[in-house]
Amino acid sequence: MLQAQALYAPVISELALVDERLRSIRRPEYPLLEPILATMLNQGGKRIRPALTLLVGRLHDYQLDRLIPMATGVELLHTATLIHDDVVDKAGLRRRRPTTFAQWGTGPAVLAGDYLFAAAADQVARTENQRVIRLFANTLMVIAQGELAQVFAAHRWQASRELYFERISAKTATLFATAAESGGVLSLAPEPAVQALREYGHALGMAFQLTDDILDFVGDEQELGKPVGSDLLQGTLTLPAFWLVERYPEGNAIRRYFEGRAPEDLAQAIEAVRNSPGLEEAQVVAGSYGERARRALIGLPASAAVQALLDLVDYVLERRI
Amino acid sequence: MLQAQALYAPVISELALVDERLRSIRRPEYPLLEPILATMLNQGGKRIRPALTLLVGRLHDYQLDRLIPMATGVELLHTATLIHDDVVDKAGLRRRRPTTFAQWGTGPAVLAGDYLFAAAADQVARTENQRVIRLFANTLMVIAQGELAQVFAAHRWQASRELYFERISAKTATLFATAAESGGVLSLAPEPAVQALREYGHALGMAFQLTDDILDFVGDEQELGKPVGSDLLQGTLTLPAFWLVERYPEGNAIRRYFEGRAPEDLAQAIEAVRNSPGLEEAQVVAGSYGERARRALIGLPASAAVQALLDLVDYVLERRI
Repeated sequence: MLQAQALYAPVISELALVDERLRSIRRPEYPLLEPILATMLNQGGKRIRPALTLLVGRLHDYQLDRLIPMATGVELLHTATLIHDDVVDKAGLRRRRPTTFAQWGTGPAVLAGDYLFAAAADQVARTENQRVIRLFANTLMVIAQGELAQVFAAHRWQASRELYFERISAKTATLFATAAESGGVLSLAPEPAVQALREYGHALGMAFQLTDDILDFVGDEQELGKPVGSDLLQGTLTLPAFWLVERYPEGNAIRRYFEGRAPEDLAQAIEAVRNSPGLEEAQVVAGSYGERARRALIGLPASAAVQALLDLVDYVLERRI
Repeated sequence: MLQAQALYAPVISELALVDERLRSIRRPEYPLLEPILATMLNQGGKRIRPALTLLVGRLHDYQLDRLIPMATGVELLHTATLIHDDVVDKAGLRRRRPTTFAQWGTGPAVLAGDYLFAAAADQVARTENQRVIRLFANTLMVIAQGELAQVFAAHRWQASRELYFERISAKTATLFATAAESGGVLSLAPEPAVQALREYGHALGMAFQLTDDILDFVGDEQELGKPVGSDLLQGTLTLPAFWLVERYPEGNAIRRYFEGRAPEDLAQAIEAVRNSPGLEEAQVVAGSYGERARRALIGLPASAAVQALLDLVDYVLERRI
């Protein structure tokens, strides 16, 4: 099993600087925000998005004074969207801890998320690069619209695969693509390289979200830090579940659960998906996005950073949390 | 009674361009967002903040290609914060219509607000001016923190006047200050003029919020488009109410309402504030901020735009809605 930290070796000291900046966002002049932000900024996610910006930056002109604020902004944007998602989903647990929503309620969670969006924008503005500033704003537009699509699709068991792919592209892969593209732009990579890196980021993000959606069925609750079957519980149909609803449209536990919301139907639906070919099918699709990510790197001269980006694909596909 | 539209005469055609941009934010590529954003973007607020940016811009080098996106960004930021505030307050009515929260629920309202923050950031990025981009991000940080202070102060009848002024400065006056400062920066005003214009904007914003807080007690429900006494209902102590709680700390209807939340205590509290000297006191304070705003303009050569900025002070103090 790959460890994320080992993959980050080429940028490990720079990631520590990003962490330091993230901690400094809990500013002493805003004492009310401190305890609200502490949990989310401290509990150490995987930091995969800022690592992506830094690793990509390593490939060309490694301009740390621009890459560090960008990497910090990307992680802050991600954190802000998690806080708001948990409000939208009324989610109780994330990474084994109560969500900001569960701990502080709707109002503080909405406002803490807004503060982090602003803090993210402030970091990205420090790059003084027009292109990544607009890229950043557009990324948040796409994410918000993708989350909204998920809200409106909730409990619709007839949802289409096409909309599923659009949705995970918007809510997850776009930010991975932005993390990679901005690393390329800020390290002054030539335009074809920037496009290839964006494609790498997008495909990696798709593989990441597909793996997330698979783990939601087969993961270990202790390791995941949230209940198995959370997606179905929220009314969200993900790729592993499509086989079942398409094969048995007239009678399946997912449809029963979405229509009646009985807890026993949820348990049956989770079990049915686990035992269906939908799970392996989703793994194959995730693998093909991994392959697409690897292919986007062809032509880059070998280096520790390129190797780390290749290993990151394996990590994303093989991870258990 | 002054009409806002008449005041905007020197910038009226440019404000129409801002309105056009605001409408274009409801993009066809995001059909789900369209109906959610339609209400808030159509129902025509007073447009006082974008008018401020444009009027200030008129004083120096009137660079429309930068002032129009900035004015649009300022109004979008304002709209986004209103949508989120209504989620935080669980408010049902605004401008005589159901709020986005009431009509669509928490999730869509949170995400529509996020989308508008991003759209605002995108507009401001188009100014290509580093200073106003960072000013914008910092403004949202201050607003979020000010709203949070209000949430945490809710139902505390012993709140201090000092914290009240800090709070209205953060949640309202800061954006007015930013609207004016950015108008100065983008029209290449000399730095002392930029500072004076920022001070004008801040004082105008304080006068605006104080008048809002007075109207919440004495306004006409039909004209206001929301119930009288909304602030006390939310547990928010505003300047007109301080006299009462300070004069009768042991027994007053506000304290009774905040402690017990009985509707009859709310009605009594509203009546008691209406009949107290606190109301006139707040009017005097609002007037003194108006005076401060006027003073900040001393030294500017006479022009239609300066006259409009002076008239805007009267409008803000005398308005009924």
